[in-house]
Amino acid sequence: MEFGSFLVSLGTSAVIFVVLMLLFTWLSRKSGNVPIYYPNRILKGMDPWEGSSLTRNPFAWIREAFTSTEQDVVNLSGVDTAVYFVFLSTVLGIFALSALLILPILLPLAATDDSIKSNARSRKKPTDTISKGTFSQLDNLSMANITEMSPRLWAFLGAVFWVSLVTYFMLWKAYKHVAALRAKALMSTDVIPEQFAILVRDIPSPPNGQTQKEFIDSYYREIYPETFYRSLVVTENKKVNKIWEDLEGYKKKLARAEAISAATSNRPTNKTGFLGLMGKKVDSIEYYTELINESVAKLEAEQRAVLAEKQQTAAIVFFTDRVTAALAAQSLHCQMAEKWTVTEAPEPRQLIWNNLKIKMFSRIIRQYVIYVLVAVTILFYMIPITFVSAITTLENLQKIIPFIKPVVKIASIRTILESYLPQIALIVFLALLPKFLLFLSKSEGIPSQSHAIRAASGKYFYFSVLNVFIGVTLAGTLFDTLKALEKNPNSIITVLATSLPKSATFFLTYVALKFFVGYGLELSRIIPLIIFHLKKKYLCKTEAEIKEAWYPGDLNYATRVPGDMLILTITFCYSVIAPLILVFGVIYFSLGWLVLRNQALKVYVPSYESYGRMWPHIHQRILAALFLFQVVMFGYLGAKRFVWATLVIPLIVTSLVFGYVCRQKFYKGFEHTALEVACRELKETPNLEEVFRSYIPHSLSSHKPEDHQFKGAMSRYQDYAAISAA
Amino acid sequence: MEFGSFLVSLGTSAVIFVVLMLLFTWLSRKSGNVPIYYPNRILKGMDPWEGSSLTRNPFAWIREAFTSTEQDVVNLSGVDTAVYFVFLSTVLGIFALSALLILPILLPLAATDDSIKSNARSRKKPTDTISKGTFSQLDNLSMANITEMSPRLWAFLGAVFWVSLVTYFMLWKAYKHVAALRAKALMSTDVIPEQFAILVRDIPSPPNGQTQKEFIDSYYREIYPETFYRSLVVTENKKVNKIWEDLEGYKKKLARAEAISAATSNRPTNKTGFLGLMGKKVDSIEYYTELINESVAKLEAEQRAVLAEKQQTAAIVFFTDRVTAALAAQSLHCQMAEKWTVTEAPEPRQLIWNNLKIKMFSRIIRQYVIYVLVAVTILFYMIPITFVSAITTLENLQKIIPFIKPVVKIASIRTILESYLPQIALIVFLALLPKFLLFLSKSEGIPSQSHAIRAASGKYFYFSVLNVFIGVTLAGTLFDTLKALEKNPNSIITVLATSLPKSATFFLTYVALKFFVGYGLELSRIIPLIIFHLKKKYLCKTEAEIKEAWYPGDLNYATRVPGDMLILTITFCYSVIAPLILVFGVIYFSLGWLVLRNQALKVYVPSYESYGRMWPHIHQRILAALFLFQVVMFGYLGAKRFVWATLVIPLIVTSLVFGYVCRQKFYKGFEHTALEVACRELKETPNLEEVFRSYIPHSLSSHKPEDHQFKGAMSRYQDYAAISAA
Repeated sequence: MEFGSFLVSLGTSAVIFVVLMLLFTWLSRKSGNVPIYYPNRILKGMDPWEGSSLTRNPFAWIREAFTSTEQDVVNLSGVDTAVYFVFLSTVLGIFALSALLILPILLPLAATDDSIKSNARSRKKPTDTISKGTFSQLDNLSMANITEMSPRLWAFLGAVFWVSLVTYFMLWKAYKHVAALRAKALMSTDVIPEQFAILVRDIPSPPNGQTQKEFIDSYYREIYPETFYRSLVVTENKKVNKIWEDLEGYKKKLARAEAISAATSNRPTNKTGFLGLMGKKVDSIEYYTELINESVAKLEAEQRAVLAEKQQTAAIVFFTDRVTAALAAQSLHCQMAEKWTVTEAPEPRQLIWNNLKIKMFSRIIRQYVIYVLVAVTILFYMIPITFVSAITTLENLQKIIPFIKPVVKIASIRTILESYLPQIALIVFLALLPKFLLFLSKSEGIPSQSHAIRAASGKYFYFSVLNVFIGVTLAGTLFDTLKALEKNPNSIITVLATSLPKSATFFLTYVALKFFVGYGLELSRIIPLIIFHLKKKYLCKTEAEIKEAWYPGDLNYATRVPGDMLILTITFCYSVIAPLILVFGVIYFSLGWLVLRNQALKVYVPSYESYGRMWPHIHQRILAALFLFQVVMFGYLGAKRFVWATLVIPLIVTSLVFGYVCRQKFYKGFEHTALEVACRELKETPNLEEVFRSYIPHSLSSHKPEDHQFKGAMSRYQDYAAISAA
Repeated sequence: MEFGSFLVSLGTSAVIFVVLMLLFTWLSRKSGNVPIYYPNRILKGMDPWEGSSLTRNPFAWIREAFTSTEQDVVNLSGVDTAVYFVFLSTVLGIFALSALLILPILLPLAATDDSIKSNARSRKKPTDTISKGTFSQLDNLSMANITEMSPRLWAFLGAVFWVSLVTYFMLWKAYKHVAALRAKALMSTDVIPEQFAILVRDIPSPPNGQTQKEFIDSYYREIYPETFYRSLVVTENKKVNKIWEDLEGYKKKLARAEAISAATSNRPTNKTGFLGLMGKKVDSIEYYTELINESVAKLEAEQRAVLAEKQQTAAIVFFTDRVTAALAAQSLHCQMAEKWTVTEAPEPRQLIWNNLKIKMFSRIIRQYVIYVLVAVTILFYMIPITFVSAITTLENLQKIIPFIKPVVKIASIRTILESYLPQIALIVFLALLPKFLLFLSKSEGIPSQSHAIRAASGKYFYFSVLNVFIGVTLAGTLFDTLKALEKNPNSIITVLATSLPKSATFFLTYVALKFFVGYGLELSRIIPLIIFHLKKKYLCKTEAEIKEAWYPGDLNYATRVPGDMLILTITFCYSVIAPLILVFGVIYFSLGWLVLRNQALKVYVPSYESYGRMWPHIHQRILAALFLFQVVMFGYLGAKRFVWATLVIPLIVTSLVFGYVCRQKFYKGFEHTALEVACRELKETPNLEEVFRSYIPHSLSSHKPEDHQFKGAMSRYQDYAAISAA
């Protein structure tokens, strides 16, 4: 890619971002759009424009984001979101500190060398003019322009050390900070139901004459005679859930029919057959009322049946105090470790109920099977991505599809195609995967939503690093690579290292596209806005339906973190080879911090709280990226025939030791609740009955119409109704 | 080695064994030898000849060994010893079951083939007579005699499967049995002090104004307000121990002086200078009485100083019930996992007091440093062992030390030298190492004696397998091996496999020597007997001194288990290549079982009790030996150009899976005390003050003369005195 098309791509992206930001400023000030731009505030019962409503300054959101404290984020969006911001600011810190020393030293060093020109010269006949197309101006600012064995390489080696040391320092600080955040949240004087419960799985069959529940109760009562409260046996809820969902559906339809009736004063009708298109025509209100009555009867019968006959081999066990629950969750109950296995109870809303009954060895087997499946997925995706990267140089496209030649001849189209084609192909590709990986992770038998998301996010990280980064880097020189590997399998590092500079410009463009267009769309929320207005106008009849149309969902860590991690990996690996990428990295993470701060405070509603359990995974992956960077730099300095490249080896060892020490020191505190944290006094005596009730699935709790899936938001719902109607 | 010398060696060993056994029968019936042959019974307060005293049948000890139950062993020698017998009988079972199918099938198959002869023939000119010296008759019974690609190899492949399946079955059964043994012992209704305590290390510095003890007490009282009893802070005892030891020494000398005085009615005197050889002559009784009074005063002063000023960062924390202690020992107390680390408290007598203060990261560093040291030891020992094995063929010896030629010419000496030289060299070698490894293991910072012994035993196992087994096997063909390895490093398995049959006879002799001479000496206790009588006659004056002279020590797992493991590994690896070794394996383990059963019941006194914690290590090493066997067989079948050797690969995978499953299912129950085990009711309310007192070191407890190091034995001591005097 030439320098020109790079600048065009950058410029276009910047313009798109500015347009989207202006759009956001304009749209977010219209009161009809409030539920799209301020849903989190509405659900929390706050005034959407609190504070800023007086000024209505178009950049007020930026000021608000900067003035918000970590405590605000914790209050409005939970510890997990605060941890995500620690991640963003840590990475930002790493890149900013690195850039501070690297840019002013390495860029001049690279620019004043002339390896590329002299190579080009030596390849041509000396009388030829130097062909402009064979190298990009950007490459002059990279290590590719440094002559082999040049003493200038010392500066680049020093830069590797600097980046590494900065990373260790920032990561250590961040881990300590996150650990404190987690401890503070867990020490809360409020009653948190999951702190009083443990999840028990792999319960053996009860002896004759006992039900599963009696067996569990007697087992725990013997061990904890004073602190055992009661147990909730996991049941097979498939059928009762189905009835409950039908019932909820009928209720919604009834409400809708009543709303239509009230608005138009006609009795609405519907057909009973397939999709409401065929069959007998009936009065909707009567019809659904009747169905509801039927369903309620069926539900109650099934509830009794479930509790009596469908008890399974897992349970939530409740204790009267937090310390006992924390102790019990960490201790071996049965001599045979595959029975009565315990873990801390996840939040009620996070429980993946169907996975609880899966036995330990079955979980282990599932896990390995899924690792194999994921490995296969990663390898099979390699083929299409390599293919896409290979054909999306325009020269190749013209050869393969000759009839596009006339189109490509037009200069402007050519430039745009050249700058965007490969990146768009890549982004579309990556959008297909996360759901599949989450599905696989859930199939492992993981008991909680947040854990499944962490697992999926890990898979997605390895996928993206392997496929996008290594895949794209090697694809340009794929056949050379394969030949080299055949000769000597150990040369992968050298091959990877030497093909890195060739892909530098590609990744610069990729990062820029990601932050300008990605964060522009994120901030402006154009697509949710359009969908909301369409739904509101044509589909929604009741308040509940309207709320469903604007309900924002959560920050979606499962794909957001791996996405950031990919950018992080790319920036790390190029930080010394093509230092300019640090600028892009800094912009990406600062823009990300700013836009998402706004979204976290005003838009997204967390769907679970894991008290920062994601951090150890984030930490480990940042370190993995650093490790990859060090290995690649070792290879690339070696390829430049710089003997002191060996000095990178102690650095690589340091990374491993650092990771080990961090794991030893911090990880257990994230895996379990430390007792010194759990032993803090509560503000009030916990209402254990309420704690217990919070774990009963909706379909099994006695059915009242006000039970609603947006539980946390319920009390504020009326407030929103008032605003929305205004 | 020729067949003749093998038979001579075997015969000599057998004769030695018979002689030693007769000696034992004769000596053990003399009442003066009772404290050597029945010390455990004496210390337990039992009649040494109980039951058998009526018959005085020379083989009564065999009957007694066979009729004793596992419960007898547990009662007389503890769970660890019972677990050791489970190990012996499991291995015996594996070899006996293997031999049952393998010997009748493989031996005829090997004997009727003629690979060796035909090879020998093809090497010589066809007219030559076949040289007898080039192969041993034993080799005809081994796989070496099977022609390449012969369909007979199917039977050998089948044998590999049979041995593996038998091993899985026996190991599974044994693990279950040992787990039950452990659970039963831990469920004991007696008060076991260590079940009420945990060991806490890495305690941070107390805040200003608090002592370490106050800090610890307040920390634990906050977490366990109702079940915390008290804490015992670990102190720096070096100086107080020194004073206490001096005091004990003076007491012994005083007692000795008084005994002499009573016997001879002369006041004994001694000199106060170097070793009692120089200096002023004083009256011993007066002199030591004075020294004792001085020391007692010094001791009390130092005891106060220690408790006040020398508190360290570790403590034993006591709880009022077993469940809380079990819970606390498994749970994370501090958010930062390197502080307030907890483990189950070891028995008081096992505590390695000086290691308790070592901090977590320091322990980890020590551990890795010591792993490196052990690796270096293993590699450096390789050189002398290789050297010894290489020169101990007589031909080589004659070349190196020509003047021994005339001696060697004498046929009988030649045969004996040929049969014993290498084995004796090896045994002497191995005797030097265990103490060093135990020292290294203790330096790792391990808090308990039994744990240090397990660690040392593991190191010794790897040492012996690597050095003795692989070392000796490869040494015969050392230079060929090195050349082959240079060409292709992956060929180690093939090289090892093909050089195995050459060493088969060496190992047959080694095993035979081990069991006949080793167990003969073990049973007859000739050396302890001689030492005891010499000491009794010339040195001992007081009862305490006599007791010290016969006090038997424990079974010494640290070297016994790795020794057995080496035999096990050798037998496994040759079980199919030279099936005759199975007979020797069976004899070794059955003789071992018999002799040691006698020793466990009558002689050895366990010095600690770890409730079978050694089993997981034993299990894993048996499995490691099986794994080595499978890999070697894969290589050897491959070297015989048998394509179906690949069928061994699924078997190797099965071994790994089997090990993983066992670890998952059983290991945690050995690492911790399961709660369902800890929650059993006690026979009586525990006397917590007594539990606490049992952890106070001798040098810190208020000093009374009857405190003695053989605590468990004290109450029975008078009984012995009566017998011994008779």
